[in-house]
Amino acid sequence: MRNTLGHNVTLTIFGESHGPAIGAVIDGLPGGIKVSEDSIKAALDKRRPSNKGETSRVEKDSFSIVSGVFNGYTNGNAVTILIPNSDTHSNDYEANKGLARPSHADYVAHEKYNGYEDYRGGGHFSGRITAAIVAAGAIVIDALEAKGIKIGTHIEQLGSVKDTRFDVLNPEIDAVNAKSFPTIKDVSDEMLKEMESAGKDMDSVGGIVEGAVAGLPVGLGEPWFSSVEGELANALFSIGGVKGIEFGLGFGFASSHGSEVNDPLTVADGKVGTTSNNNGGINGGITNGMPVIFRCAIKPTPSIAKEQNTVNFLTGDNAKLSIVGRHDPAIVRRIAPILRAITSFVIADLLSIEWGRNFLVK
Amino acid sequence: MRNTLGHNVTLTIFGESHGPAIGAVIDGLPGGIKVSEDSIKAALDKRRPSNKGETSRVEKDSFSIVSGVFNGYTNGNAVTILIPNSDTHSNDYEANKGLARPSHADYVAHEKYNGYEDYRGGGHFSGRITAAIVAAGAIVIDALEAKGIKIGTHIEQLGSVKDTRFDVLNPEIDAVNAKSFPTIKDVSDEMLKEMESAGKDMDSVGGIVEGAVAGLPVGLGEPWFSSVEGELANALFSIGGVKGIEFGLGFGFASSHGSEVNDPLTVADGKVGTTSNNNGGINGGITNGMPVIFRCAIKPTPSIAKEQNTVNFLTGDNAKLSIVGRHDPAIVRRIAPILRAITSFVIADLLSIEWGRNFLVK
Amino acid sequence: MRNTLGHNVTLTIFGESHGPAIGAVIDGLPGGIKVSEDSIKAALDKRRPSNKGETSRVEKDSFSIVSGVFNGYTNGNAVTILIPNSDTHSNDYEANKGLARPSHADYVAHEKYNGYEDYRGGGHFSGRITAAIVAAGAIVIDALEAKGIKIGTHIEQLGSVKDTRFDVLNPEIDAVNAKSFPTIKDVSDEMLKEMESAGKDMDSVGGIVEGAVAGLPVGLGEPWFSSVEGELANALFSIGGVKGIEFGLGFGFASSHGSEVNDPLTVADGKVGTTSNNNGGINGGITNGMPVIFRCAIKPTPSIAKEQNTVNFLTGDNAKLSIVGRHDPAIVRRIAPILRAITSFVIADLLSIEWGRNFLVK
Amino acid sequence: MRNTLGHNVTLTIFGESHGPAIGAVIDGLPGGIKVSEDSIKAALDKRRPSNKGETSRVEKDSFSIVSGVFNGYTNGNAVTILIPNSDTHSNDYEANKGLARPSHADYVAHEKYNGYEDYRGGGHFSGRITAAIVAAGAIVIDALEAKGIKIGTHIEQLGSVKDTRFDVLNPEIDAVNAKSFPTIKDVSDEMLKEMESAGKDMDSVGGIVEGAVAGLPVGLGEPWFSSVEGELANALFSIGGVKGIEFGLGFGFASSHGSEVNDPLTVADGKVGTTSNNNGGINGGITNGMPVIFRCAIKPTPSIAKEQNTVNFLTGDNAKLSIVGRHDPAIVRRIAPILRAITSFVIADLLSIEWGRNFLVK
Repeated sequence: MRNTLGHNVTLTIFGESHGPAIGAVIDGLPGGIKVSEDSIKAALDKRRPSNKGETSRVEKDSFSIVSGVFNGYTNGNAVTILIPNSDTHSNDYEANKGLARPSHADYVAHEKYNGYEDYRGGGHFSGRITAAIVAAGAIVIDALEAKGIKIGTHIEQLGSVKDTRFDVLNPEIDAVNAKSFPTIKDVSDEMLKEMESAGKDMDSVGGIVEGAVAGLPVGLGEPWFSSVEGELANALFSIGGVKGIEFGLGFGFASSHGSEVNDPLTVADGKVGTTSNNNGGINGGITNGMPVIFRCAIKPTPSIAKEQNTVNFLTGDNAKLSIVGRHDPAIVRRIAPILRAITSFVIADLLSIEWGRNFLVK
Repeated sequence: MRNTLGHNVTLTIFGESHGPAIGAVIDGLPGGIKVSEDSIKAALDKRRPSNKGETSRVEKDSFSIVSGVFNGYTNGNAVTILIPNSDTHSNDYEANKGLARPSHADYVAHEKYNGYEDYRGGGHFSGRITAAIVAAGAIVIDALEAKGIKIGTHIEQLGSVKDTRFDVLNPEIDAVNAKSFPTIKDVSDEMLKEMESAGKDMDSVGGIVEGAVAGLPVGLGEPWFSSVEGELANALFSIGGVKGIEFGLGFGFASSHGSEVNDPLTVADGKVGTTSNNNGGINGGITNGMPVIFRCAIKPTPSIAKEQNTVNFLTGDNAKLSIVGRHDPAIVRRIAPILRAITSFVIADLLSIEWGRNFLVK
Repeated sequence: MRNTLGHNVTLTIFGESHGPAIGAVIDGLPGGIKVSEDSIKAALDKRRPSNKGETSRVEKDSFSIVSGVFNGYTNGNAVTILIPNSDTHSNDYEANKGLARPSHADYVAHEKYNGYEDYRGGGHFSGRITAAIVAAGAIVIDALEAKGIKIGTHIEQLGSVKDTRFDVLNPEIDAVNAKSFPTIKDVSDEMLKEMESAGKDMDSVGGIVEGAVAGLPVGLGEPWFSSVEGELANALFSIGGVKGIEFGLGFGFASSHGSEVNDPLTVADGKVGTTSNNNGGINGGITNGMPVIFRCAIKPTPSIAKEQNTVNFLTGDNAKLSIVGRHDPAIVRRIAPILRAITSFVIADLLSIEWGRNFLVK
Repeated sequence: MRNTLGHNVTLTIFGESHGPAIGAVIDGLPGGIKVSEDSIKAALDKRRPSNKGETSRVEKDSFSIVSGVFNGYTNGNAVTILIPNSDTHSNDYEANKGLARPSHADYVAHEKYNGYEDYRGGGHFSGRITAAIVAAGAIVIDALEAKGIKIGTHIEQLGSVKDTRFDVLNPEIDAVNAKSFPTIKDVSDEMLKEMESAGKDMDSVGGIVEGAVAGLPVGLGEPWFSSVEGELANALFSIGGVKGIEFGLGFGFASSHGSEVNDPLTVADGKVGTTSNNNGGINGGITNGMPVIFRCAIKPTPSIAKEQNTVNFLTGDNAKLSIVGRHDPAIVRRIAPILRAITSFVIADLLSIEWGRNFLVK
């Protein structure tokens, strides 16, 4: 609960956008997982703003592993990664103190935390925190890959520009993971143009990120209250901006008939599978051995430069707000690696519950 | 985890479709909540198949409260409701033993439970279990209403027939809860026709159920890993057939600009609110005092009479299957009260975490 | 939390002494564990009062398994055992309503549950609830024994009469489990006399129950906050009357020197062990492969016939109380099988966390 | 579970004795708790070895708060305290690699963590980790004191030297907390002599630490599986060396009669209390408003200089071991502030569950 995700393999995160540091604690991993600092760096690079139109806050993301790793391998105890905050322009935020950014968490944070919230840069609500998640996820992603389990994410939609969806029987995971702007079709330039255009309009734009997990065994998850869908959804709704999630055909099921969308089973080479995958690899909350496929709807970044109506919750007055800090006109691209990282924790946790702590190393 | 939902207020469910009984244990409620058997009966009636085209399995749903209630009030200990199974036609299922119903959990259950699954009527995966959830939910729904918190659900879509969406600033909760076939517009006859038609075709059809919660205080939920969206999503994905969930504008955000969909704040009578509600009452994972609005995509009932391709997982052969048991051609209507009940547990839990155990009685 | 014990394998209990029924839900067991109703009956018999001087409330303890078992084996879903209450003399308790039994939970229950507590027979605080735990434990005890893990409990002390302690390297588990009044030495007659004598004096008497677990693998438990000692202690302090617990030498360590009580390690036949077992099979919170040994201090039954000073919390006055209901002058003997059952859940949970769900059947 | 303690208010710890840093994350605290760096320093000073005969490893314990505190107050998000390790003599440990210290966790860590354990200085099993707990506890202890809840700990026994026990109706909390070597009677010199003497003998010695909590409301804790005794016991058994815990009269109950040890209730000034406190402030697992009193048995430090028999688990041979590192001949004094800190977390958690998140600031 709170800042902790998972049951047997857990991820705990901490930090505020403009505090001394952010970080993540991974617990429940077995001793003996190889930890590659290069993988962590590469994952952080993918999350970092780097394209035209993205925020000009570019943290170096220098991280240090302060516990849980010994001689290059997990030692079986909690792994902690620390990322100091450096490029903080805290003064950007003093001017707008009390002015609630529409669709952001400023007002609820003020109410929930009794007026003691860290209002600088969104505090604990900042996307900044996700750097720690991405760094931690790199360790787990590597461990899962060593067991033949792969997780891929791509930008299925950015504003009006659409990519194709994953092939649900054989998702293009390696292909999208190889790209810094992950799409299946060659639509990255169009998407970047859409972002840039929104930025020029002092506006922002939404999108959809699609995820796929391949190589899972049959039997992860529970029918009630710990379904694979539910566990993934709970985890992924933590990402600021995710406002919808669907598995397989998702909302497309609503207007369908069972005879069209039921997934026929088949035996080939002694292995049971399905010939379609409208259920996104999950039946009754449990993995069926087919790729797990899901899509997250991402709202436009709330922080825009255009003037908006709002309130000053310190004075109780109505007010106008134009946001001048450094912000992304679309966070969709940056969410792709975050979504991949969070998914890796959910999968590792489900595997650990089912096959025990040492599954990832044995 | 497993069959238990929640942190401070918990719901634990048990039972199989064709076992002796199903039941629910509610824990964490304070002493002093009035328990109305009439409310429980009324809630069970709403869930029961009663319309043309719905399953002919009609359980009496006679329930008994075996713990936690004393002299008509909760006594502060675990409340247990037991519902015996009576109208079980177990032999319907022996014939098809080993034949996995496409898109159902038969195959995953066989694999996960080492071949010892109760295969009769879907066992623990059966919608039957939801009767216990609905009965338990009636107690919590009443307690929430006494505190001014209302939960409503309606059928927004059934196949090709659409209802209007909730008014996001003032959802029509009382109106939809008063109906046995809950819709906002007068589309129930059309929807029933769609169900009937699917049934005649030996087929089934999907839909969308929309939920609204009004009267919530500001400040429930957490930014990370226990967002209101995440907690509700995890709970609601337990309902067999739910394959997508979105909050507020949901997937509609993907092609929107921030300037169009950000919710402007305003002060009126000293109270902060928003003039639109595209975020569905939740910012940064935390309630903002506006109605919480969400939609669940429901897949068509997997069990259809039409012949389908599948496997016999006991023999390892490909096979054909025509399902002759009693099944609903659409479970959308029946999901509405279930979704309401599950939502009530999530809300009660979030309230308890924030304001303590006695919030519901003080 | 609350009425639920464990993480991966969980036990949830419900019921009040004079309500319709008590029960237990076991969750997280794999499919395929053999369930013997005879074992459940035998375990309930051991818990039942049967000796001179014990309470004259003799429930038949007829139980029914209402979920989770199919054709004599666990089906992988929640196992629920229900035990109806029959021999309830509720009127015994109306006379003393508002009179707090000293050292019992009457007063705290009244305060905690806002005055709505079920005051009849101790309600949810009654030892009656332990019948459900013992019944549920029988299933887990059998499953553990099938894997070579044995749990034994005996009465080490009853008032002034002492049994010998377990041989810490080779505890006499089978021997004590075979007895209805479990002691190692032949002191049962003396102990019964002590109980009888206390009863005649309208008084009660305390004692110590010792437990041993043999056959555990190395590596269960965690160094911090989930040590084997901590998990067992948390579980066992739920037993009404347990007011102390110690592992291995326990409080005997306080006046010892390291050189006397450190357990030297040794290799024999390629297997590492220790030549003494002062640590009770646990180092750093983790099992070391030697027998786990612990002792629980049990206070005298609070309910005694002798007149005591107390308060009437309904009127706010000082008062006198002589308890005339049916009560045991010592619950030590009856706690032995309860302690065994609860221990079995903790062990099964620790095993499941470490080796996965199917460990007990594979 | 694992390195995380608590339900609503949680403590997560990480770090190894000779890694870059140790730390603690406190989650679930409300916004608005004053954070005093002086209190943290003072608490760390009490834990630090400072007396004759204690370890010569003297860390500066310079700490930094890297999240959750803003302008001197908690901001409502996870509070993280980081303590770098500096005075590490890692080479002390290379020589003895593979040689299991008797009664320490070396062997179990090697087995549990698949041979990847950080063996330097006990790794994650080191008492060093408790510095982070003590630092974090200082924040919670201050918050509790501001609400009138006080926690005191003293050394009741060190080897053969005994202090008096707390006055159970009015424990001497302020008095013991004011001392750097906390005892009620003037026995600190005798105790120091006992430690020094053990050290000279290349040996170590055990003891008992007693704790008291005053000012608690009635109603914390649960009858089953979350009793106050169970929650405290689970937390306190995490402290390396704690091998027994008892509440109130504890093991003294075993030979007592109910009429002697039941706590009579009385009303004075409209307030219900008891005239004795043999139950240590807890009935049926729930606080009754009297001081909570408990004692922990501490085993002698396992690391002694005297030669001991053991095994080399890397070679599988029997071996001899003389430990030459820096170690305390008794950790009893240093455990007193640790026990106080851990107790503060359990109490804050129980309060939060019962009265909501903001109890500590409202």
